Amino acid sequence: MNRVEAEKIFSEMIDKMKQKTPVPFVARDAVRVLSAIQAASDFWEVIRLSHVPMRFLCDLCIQLIDGGLVDASDGKLKLTDKGKDLVSALEIAPIKEGICEACEGRGIDISKFYGSLGEKFSEICKDRPEAIQDYDQGYVTEATSLACVSFAWQRGDIEGKEIIILGDDDLKSIAAALTGAPKRVLALDIDERLINFINEVAEREGLKNLKAVRHDLREPLRDEWLKSFDTFMCDPPESIVGLKAFVGRGLVCLKGPGSAGYFGLTHVEASMSKWAKVQRFLLDKGAVITDLRDDFSSYVNWNYMKEMRSWSWLPTKVLPNHLWYSSALYRLELLREVEVENPQLAGNIFDDEEVATN
Amino acid sequence: MNRVEAEKIFSEMIDKMKQKTPVPFVARDAVRVLSAIQAASDFWEVIRLSHVPMRFLCDLCIQLIDGGLVDASDGKLKLTDKGKDLVSALEIAPIKEGICEACEGRGIDISKFYGSLGEKFSEICKDRPEAIQDYDQGYVTEATSLACVSFAWQRGDIEGKEIIILGDDDLKSIAAALTGAPKRVLALDIDERLINFINEVAEREGLKNLKAVRHDLREPLRDEWLKSFDTFMCDPPESIVGLKAFVGRGLVCLKGPGSAGYFGLTHVEASMSKWAKVQRFLLDKGAVITDLRDDFSSYVNWNYMKEMRSWSWLPTKVLPNHLWYSSALYRLELLREVEVENPQLAGNIFDDEEVATN
Repeated sequence: MNRVEAEKIFSEMIDKMKQKTPVPFVARDAVRVLSAIQAASDFWEVIRLSHVPMRFLCDLCIQLIDGGLVDASDGKLKLTDKGKDLVSALEIAPIKEGICEACEGRGIDISKFYGSLGEKFSEICKDRPEAIQDYDQGYVTEATSLACVSFAWQRGDIEGKEIIILGDDDLKSIAAALTGAPKRVLALDIDERLINFINEVAEREGLKNLKAVRHDLREPLRDEWLKSFDTFMCDPPESIVGLKAFVGRGLVCLKGPGSAGYFGLTHVEASMSKWAKVQRFLLDKGAVITDLRDDFSSYVNWNYMKEMRSWSWLPTKVLPNHLWYSSALYRLELLREVEVENPQLAGNIFDDEEVATN
Repeated sequence: MNRVEAEKIFSEMIDKMKQKTPVPFVARDAVRVLSAIQAASDFWEVIRLSHVPMRFLCDLCIQLIDGGLVDASDGKLKLTDKGKDLVSALEIAPIKEGICEACEGRGIDISKFYGSLGEKFSEICKDRPEAIQDYDQGYVTEATSLACVSFAWQRGDIEGKEIIILGDDDLKSIAAALTGAPKRVLALDIDERLINFINEVAEREGLKNLKAVRHDLREPLRDEWLKSFDTFMCDPPESIVGLKAFVGRGLVCLKGPGSAGYFGLTHVEASMSKWAKVQRFLLDKGAVITDLRDDFSSYVNWNYMKEMRSWSWLPTKVLPNHLWYSSALYRLELLREVEVENPQLAGNIFDDEEVATN
C-alpha cells in the first residue's frame, strides 16, 4: 500500500466517522487509536492509552473492522495485514509510554506526606462500601486519593484549611482528615452508606475535624456552606451540564480569591472539545487553571461493567482484568469573587452523547 | 498577638501592596510568601517555593521589613519574633514540598526514552554556547530538555513528526533529533552562535533530520514554515504581548487540528492573572490545554544575574547557589484551523511590569 492509497482509505474512514459518531473529534483521534493498537491489543488497554472518548473508539472500531483493518475478538483488537500496511504507509508510530514507576507518573512522593499513615488509610478502606451504579459511582485507587491530598498539601490547600468534598466515593475526606493537617473537612454525598462510613471512621479514629452530611448535589447547598471553604474537591459527572453544575457548586463554596478547587476529567467520557468548554467555563467564572495533570487518577474497576451503557458499544466484550479508567486532575484558583448561584437542578443532568459509564 | 490584631496587620499590608506593586495579586500570594519563608530562608529558595512574581515578592519584602515582620540580610529572609507571631495567629503553615525524587517531580522516566543516549546529550552540551543577556537567554537543565522531549514523545508528538523549535537555547532540537524518532526537526533562533552549534552537531553526529536557521522571531516567518509542522516548542518572553506573539508564531506553524504545541510559563515573571490571559488566548485561538505541569522545567543559573532588572529590586543581594528559576510546561492541541497571521512585530514586545530577568 502506498501513501496515497493509505491516505485515501484513512480520509474515507474519517468522513464516515463524521456521519456515524455523535462525538466531536479530529483526525488525530483516529491516529491515536491506531497508535494505541500497535502498543497493546487488550481493548481496555487501548482505551487507556489512546486518550479518546470510548464512544469514539467503539464507533471507530466498527469502521476499522468493516474496512478489514482490525480484527476484534476475545477482548483483543489486532491490526490485520491490511491494517499493518496502512499504519506503515501513514507512518503512524506505536504509542510509547514511559511514566516514572516510583510515583506512578504523578510526580509526588506520598510517603513524604503520609509516612506510615498510608497503611492506616488502606486498612480503613478495607471495609468501604462498594461502588454502585445508582449514583454513577466508581472510586479511585487508594494511592490516587493519597496522592491527590499530598499534591493539594504541597499547593498549600490542606494544612490549616477548610475543605469541602462534593461527592466522596473516593474517601478523600478521610485521606485528608487522617493527616491531622486540615482545620475542617466536610464531605457531602448522596449515598447514605458513604455518609455513615465516613462518620463512623471519624468517630472511631477520633478525627474531630471530619464530618459527612447526606446531600443530593442537584439540590441547593445549605447557606452555611456558601463562601465558607478554602478548598473544594469533586469528581463531577462528565456530561457538560452536570460537570458545570457540580464544579459550579464547588466554586460557590469557596471563600474568594486565592481559594482553590480540584476536579477530575477523563478522556473516556469527554472529548477535547468538551475539555475546551470546561476550560472556558472556568475562566468565565473568574478562575485560572494552575495545574492539569493527565492520568493522575486511576479508578478501581467497578462491578456494574456489563450494565453500563457503553457495554453494548464494545467491539469485543470481555471484562477488564487491569485498571483502565483514569482521569486528569485539574487544579484551579479563584482570581475574583464568585457570584453565588445556588439553583435546584432539574431533569437528567448526567447524560450527553459522550457519557459512557452510567 | 491575637487573630484580630494579626488580621489587621495583614490587611493593612495588603492595602499598601495594592498601592505599591504594579503586579496583579490576591491576598493569598502574600500568604504563599509567608508559607515559603517558614520553609526556607534563602531568598532564591523563597522565590522558587512561593510561586509568586519576583516583582511582587520584592515589593512585599519591603512591606514586611518596614513592618518589622522580616529581617533580610546576607541573602536570607527571616521572620522576626513579631513575624512569627503573625503567621502563628493567622495559622499560615510552612510550604511542604514532596516531589518524587526519582523523576524530579516530572512524572516521566527519561531512561525509558533515551537509554544511554542521555549521556550522549550531556556530552554534546558540554561545548554549548553560554546564555547571554542580549537575547534574554537562560536555558533549562539537560534533564529538563530530555524530559520535555520524552513527555512529548509519550503524547505522540515526536515519533515520525515534523517539529519546529522557535528559539532553542535549550537545545531541544538536538535532544529530539538525537532519538532518531522525528521525521524532521527545525530550530529557529536569533543567535548565530546557537545556529552554528546546532548545525555543527547535526553534521558531526549525522543527524540528517536536524537543521537550524537564523531567524528573529519578531520578523514574519517564511512561507515554507507556515502550516507545516505537527509540533512546536517554544519558551516565549513572558510579557503578555511577547508571549502571545511567540506562541502565536508557533500556532501558525502547525498543520491543523490535532497538531500540538509546548511552551513554558513561570510564576517569577507571570502573575496568575497573566496565566488566565494566556489560557483565554489559547482557547480563543482554537486550542485546548491538554497538560499543564508546573515546575516541569528548571533553569541553569545564567551569568548576567547582576545585570537583570530585578537585581535592583532584591531586598538582600546575594547570588543564588542553587537552581531557583523554574517554569510550568503547557501542552496545547489545536481543535480547528488557525487563521494565519504573520506580521512584523515592532517596538519593545519583551517588557511589562511583571518581567524580571531581562
